[in-house]
Amino acid sequence: MNEWRNFNKGNWSETIDVRDFIQNNYKPYTGDEAFLSKASERTKILREQMDDLLKRERENGGVLDIDTERVSSLLSYPAGYIDKENEIIFGLQTDEPLKRSVNPFGGMRMAKQACEAYGKQLGERIQMNFEYKTTHNDGVFRVYTDEMRALRKYGILTGLPDAYGRGRIIGDYRRVALYGTDRLIAEKRKDFDALAKADMSDEVIRLREDVFRQMDFLGKLAKMAAMYGDDITKPAANAREAVQWTYYGYLGAIKEQNGAAMSIGRISTFLDIYIERDLEEGAIDESGAQELIDQLVIKLRLGKQLRTPEYNELFAGDPTWVTESLGGMGKDKRPLVTKNSFRFLNTLYTLGTSPEPNLTVLWSKKLPEAWKKYCAKVSIETSSIQYENDDVMRPLYGDDYGIACCVSAMKIGKQMQFFGARCNLAKLLLLAINGGRDEVSGVQIGPVSEPMTGVLDYDKVLASYMKYMEWLSHTYVNTMNIIHYMHDKYAYEKLQMALHDTDVERLMAFGAAGISVAADSLSAIKYARVTPVTNENGLIVDYKVEGDYPKYGNDDDRVDDIARQIVDSFSKMLKKTKTYRGAKHTLSLLTITSNVVYGKKTGATPCGRKAGEPFAPGANPLHGREKSGALASLNSVSKLSYCSCRDGISNTFGMVPSMLGKDKATQISNLVAIMDGYFIRKGHHLNINVYDRSVLYDAHEHPEKYPNLTIRVSGYAVRFGVLSKKHREEVLKRTFFERA
Amino acid sequence: MNEWRNFNKGNWSETIDVRDFIQNNYKPYTGDEAFLSKASERTKILREQMDDLLKRERENGGVLDIDTERVSSLLSYPAGYIDKENEIIFGLQTDEPLKRSVNPFGGMRMAKQACEAYGKQLGERIQMNFEYKTTHNDGVFRVYTDEMRALRKYGILTGLPDAYGRGRIIGDYRRVALYGTDRLIAEKRKDFDALAKADMSDEVIRLREDVFRQMDFLGKLAKMAAMYGDDITKPAANAREAVQWTYYGYLGAIKEQNGAAMSIGRISTFLDIYIERDLEEGAIDESGAQELIDQLVIKLRLGKQLRTPEYNELFAGDPTWVTESLGGMGKDKRPLVTKNSFRFLNTLYTLGTSPEPNLTVLWSKKLPEAWKKYCAKVSIETSSIQYENDDVMRPLYGDDYGIACCVSAMKIGKQMQFFGARCNLAKLLLLAINGGRDEVSGVQIGPVSEPMTGVLDYDKVLASYMKYMEWLSHTYVNTMNIIHYMHDKYAYEKLQMALHDTDVERLMAFGAAGISVAADSLSAIKYARVTPVTNENGLIVDYKVEGDYPKYGNDDDRVDDIARQIVDSFSKMLKKTKTYRGAKHTLSLLTITSNVVYGKKTGATPCGRKAGEPFAPGANPLHGREKSGALASLNSVSKLSYCSCRDGISNTFGMVPSMLGKDKATQISNLVAIMDGYFIRKGHHLNINVYDRSVLYDAHEHPEKYPNLTIRVSGYAVRFGVLSKKHREEVLKRTFFERA
Repeated sequence: MNEWRNFNKGNWSETIDVRDFIQNNYKPYTGDEAFLSKASERTKILREQMDDLLKRERENGGVLDIDTERVSSLLSYPAGYIDKENEIIFGLQTDEPLKRSVNPFGGMRMAKQACEAYGKQLGERIQMNFEYKTTHNDGVFRVYTDEMRALRKYGILTGLPDAYGRGRIIGDYRRVALYGTDRLIAEKRKDFDALAKADMSDEVIRLREDVFRQMDFLGKLAKMAAMYGDDITKPAANAREAVQWTYYGYLGAIKEQNGAAMSIGRISTFLDIYIERDLEEGAIDESGAQELIDQLVIKLRLGKQLRTPEYNELFAGDPTWVTESLGGMGKDKRPLVTKNSFRFLNTLYTLGTSPEPNLTVLWSKKLPEAWKKYCAKVSIETSSIQYENDDVMRPLYGDDYGIACCVSAMKIGKQMQFFGARCNLAKLLLLAINGGRDEVSGVQIGPVSEPMTGVLDYDKVLASYMKYMEWLSHTYVNTMNIIHYMHDKYAYEKLQMALHDTDVERLMAFGAAGISVAADSLSAIKYARVTPVTNENGLIVDYKVEGDYPKYGNDDDRVDDIARQIVDSFSKMLKKTKTYRGAKHTLSLLTITSNVVYGKKTGATPCGRKAGEPFAPGANPLHGREKSGALASLNSVSKLSYCSCRDGISNTFGMVPSMLGKDKATQISNLVAIMDGYFIRKGHHLNINVYDRSVLYDAHEHPEKYPNLTIRVSGYAVRFGVLSKKHREEVLKRTFFERA
Repeated sequence: MNEWRNFNKGNWSETIDVRDFIQNNYKPYTGDEAFLSKASERTKILREQMDDLLKRERENGGVLDIDTERVSSLLSYPAGYIDKENEIIFGLQTDEPLKRSVNPFGGMRMAKQACEAYGKQLGERIQMNFEYKTTHNDGVFRVYTDEMRALRKYGILTGLPDAYGRGRIIGDYRRVALYGTDRLIAEKRKDFDALAKADMSDEVIRLREDVFRQMDFLGKLAKMAAMYGDDITKPAANAREAVQWTYYGYLGAIKEQNGAAMSIGRISTFLDIYIERDLEEGAIDESGAQELIDQLVIKLRLGKQLRTPEYNELFAGDPTWVTESLGGMGKDKRPLVTKNSFRFLNTLYTLGTSPEPNLTVLWSKKLPEAWKKYCAKVSIETSSIQYENDDVMRPLYGDDYGIACCVSAMKIGKQMQFFGARCNLAKLLLLAINGGRDEVSGVQIGPVSEPMTGVLDYDKVLASYMKYMEWLSHTYVNTMNIIHYMHDKYAYEKLQMALHDTDVERLMAFGAAGISVAADSLSAIKYARVTPVTNENGLIVDYKVEGDYPKYGNDDDRVDDIARQIVDSFSKMLKKTKTYRGAKHTLSLLTITSNVVYGKKTGATPCGRKAGEPFAPGANPLHGREKSGALASLNSVSKLSYCSCRDGISNTFGMVPSMLGKDKATQISNLVAIMDGYFIRKGHHLNINVYDRSVLYDAHEHPEKYPNLTIRVSGYAVRFGVLSKKHREEVLKRTFFERA
């Protein structure tokens, strides 16, 4: 087959096995960044137009335009271009760049509100299309119990994907390039036929319907590509086609689904194989190679979903989590770093810094030094990269996993996730002390128990906390079961799942927020003297804290152990309730930017935090309490067990440049050393921000001066200027370490 | 409560229990028909209009008009009237009488084809409504296996409800009258809340969504009634309201669902209680009572669904199976016959004979003699009644069951049925002899085995038959599982199920056709000498039969035992495969009018029947083979075990009047005696046709002379004149016994 010329054959040529193709064909690169090219002329022209489009979008209040007349799907819109002449990678979500599409499958109310928020009216045709169609949101709210509604309303469970696409599913978009849709359909047909031999239980019927629809959407994907003049029924024959085919797969996915996080997976080393072949064949040079990646990244940066203002409050800065995982080590100990890994990071220069795609480096002690240094350099210069510990994930997920959203690892094409947002563990503690009543409204939302009085007793509080955690875990799993049953029923990801193995492993990813506040509060109760303060209705609304206590973030086992125990307990309790479709329970400590909203909804806590004040993001210590320097802070976080938190432990870390050293070379070496240290201690994730605080203050006062200032806020990056005032203030409060 | 004035309280006043209400309040009637009234003036006027409408419908090719612009549902159409001034019971399916509605939930292709068959185009709005909506039919065909498609295509499994509403579900429409929708919703709410305490397994989530939608549709039903100016949120306060409220329940059901059989249940004795109270209060007289029932029946006669010509080929005469079950005995040995049972039969005089509603008398030896005689009289004069054995059903279903469609018993409001159409057992035998190949096309559709050669050996044929039956049973259950999974998923009967207990018992009703041909064929192989005849491709396409053999229908145990064994085996084999939602397997011997199509699709059989010739209907002996008189024929059928055929055994029985005696009184007595005899021998079902063959021949030649000639063709009646030529010919071939 001409498309596979000069590739080493292997299991991948017999069956769908992209990893095997990579392992048999990729060339590790251990050199430095000197080979990299600048942006091509065509790319520069496109970049200007992209920057202009994004600027106009910002000026227009965050959304440039909406197609309110068509339901978003693969074949709803004609082909769209930015500037056809200068484009080499094609495909827009709608017929015009940054014109957003309406996706009502997740929920009609949200679609309507989103249109209205930007001064538009949802078109009559779309409403007619859904007159008799149930959305995911309809389905969920039919079945939610009163208890679930209350937990949601009062902010114990927040950010549940019950009104839009659940996201966090990574299609193996590389399969489109390597095999073409005809072969993919044929392989799915085999699975479909094999299922015909089984008894028609509910599970088998559901799966056969799933696979049928997957085949249908692979066919639709080919039709979508044909609109742009490409025939993806056959494999990609060169590097441009490989990039383009892969992108069509992704484009189809974001046309079909408005999931919060629509990650692209781990495509760079895969694509490098095609680029290397083209380079050898003399079909392109390095400039042409960079141009392919640049133009792909331009498209990825323009991918947007239509959201409501409430959604933006939770996930600030209009993120899309086009997460691309770079680097990592192979099981055979060869690094998975290729020249193309460098080219992806290089886009932060060729196209300027940007939050998207969400560039994620899979870190290992054994990575080539030149790559590590280049990453550190780019981090220092752009604050746009996150890092995750390949050495703890590889044993669990192999060497072809990717990160969905911020920290969620899964084997590409072999595992999928039922996204579960998160519960507020700090607020749960208040509930446990308050006898099951919400400390803000006074409403009874948990089981009734005696509210605590007098100086709080650690053992009693802990026992009550565990009891409420047990109750919440049970309800939390049941809530997830409803959400994902309904999502499968009413908004199934046909295309994304078509790019998974039929016999996919399912993960159900729960989440916890407020871990540092919960740990510090329990520490205060144990080591200081904490007395509840009640209001006129006998509701505990505040705490008197006398004396000092150990605080999470200072490498002090007395409190770090408490944090660890809370997480371990919660993880264990969740596993007691059966999940939908037999999914494996996982847990993350990750808030994205919702730490601000969670804090707003949470009363005063026994640690002395005032009512309404933001939490720390993810697993971070609370701002200002980490008094023992950067390494102590990192050590505290690294003690949390990845084994209990298989869905990831997010740590967002800020430093002033001078902490790292006086000159760039020293800074780079030190940053590499810090990361090596953190990850050897089994820390899982690290966002790196390197800023002089004065820059951020100035940007806060004069956002217009810094239109492209990018900062990692959590498992993703944002342009600082588009954050709300509240979010900017919270970022400013975060610790930017000045000493190690 | 004023609505319940003068009613005896009981369990029914505390919880939903219509049976208890009936038992506590009904007045058995043991007298004769002398009390009956003629049609009122208003009814006469309406009847004329009804007859005219039906005539115009016939003249217009079977369908008068179609609303192609709206999707059929409870609130799609404004209130419609025949002649408002003369109507006392309101409610039409659309805004005009006999204007049919489009119901695409079961399948869009069928909706389109049906419109086109009558010269209309399906409206754009309806198509837009379903642009992103999956229908039941879509769902089923996504999952069907190749084997299932083949079984369906080649006529082994036929009449499967995979393209329209499955029907055969009887809402307890009486609940609307007795309780009003507010109370019904409140009771459903309790069930809904109770389910909140369970773990959210797939089953619980599905059921909670079901109940939510049930409540929603009870609300819609109240709105539908409000369009006609009635407030059904409260119970019915008098007889008119009781009839009207009950009918609204039924009307909502047929607006929402286009199920093949939409039976009304067992309403007459329930309504009698309200009529008796009104009579006692002097609010109405007998004429007013008859008027209520007449006007209800006019509405029921005008209920129609939009079907395709193919559907009509299977179920000839545009039947709707508005089956109403009359009479029967109570567990306390009081007959459940009331004056209202008489009034329902009386509509065959006040309004003329008619196939609908499908009047079904539940027969017991212990029924009052006057009632039995009246039934016999009506049968002789109208051939419009069917009879079913209350004494065999009551022990299994209690005394508040009803018949869905033709013969399917279920406890009203407590059991529902997953309708399973039927498999062709005669054709299966040919497959077993032919090594799994279809004897018509030669296509291999079953497991491969060696085709039989030479004189057929009974034991070998039987062993092979059982092997193929085992295979078919397994696939048949799996096919049903897919159909009903998808119907629940895409076309769930919200309103009908709202009028069932939440904890409903589910039956899965399989069916068999061609039993007499299969039994006779095996008898021929055993007792005569049968040699297969192959065509040039080695396919067995005919049989040479030498010698005579015992034939089913002559009270000869040698063949009757074979028939019984086939049915018992099939019933047992079906039970080996698990059903959807844990439904209980049942089986019927019932073909409706599809015996003609089944015969057409079946090659020559070893019994000497030629290729393409019709089967006998239901469990009937094959026409012309019952040479031993009426009683011998009845005896043969009555040997089939109801225990194996819990879904019923249909027997359609014709006599010439002279067989019954010279004068009407003798005829009546003899018919009663025949039925007593048949049912004491545990015969299950009997259609009674009493005709001089010459009348039928004349009607065949000059249908225009007999516009209202009604005949029971199977589990339902039709107007003889609307049958196709093929169907009329088949009816003429049927045995009309001239001697007992």
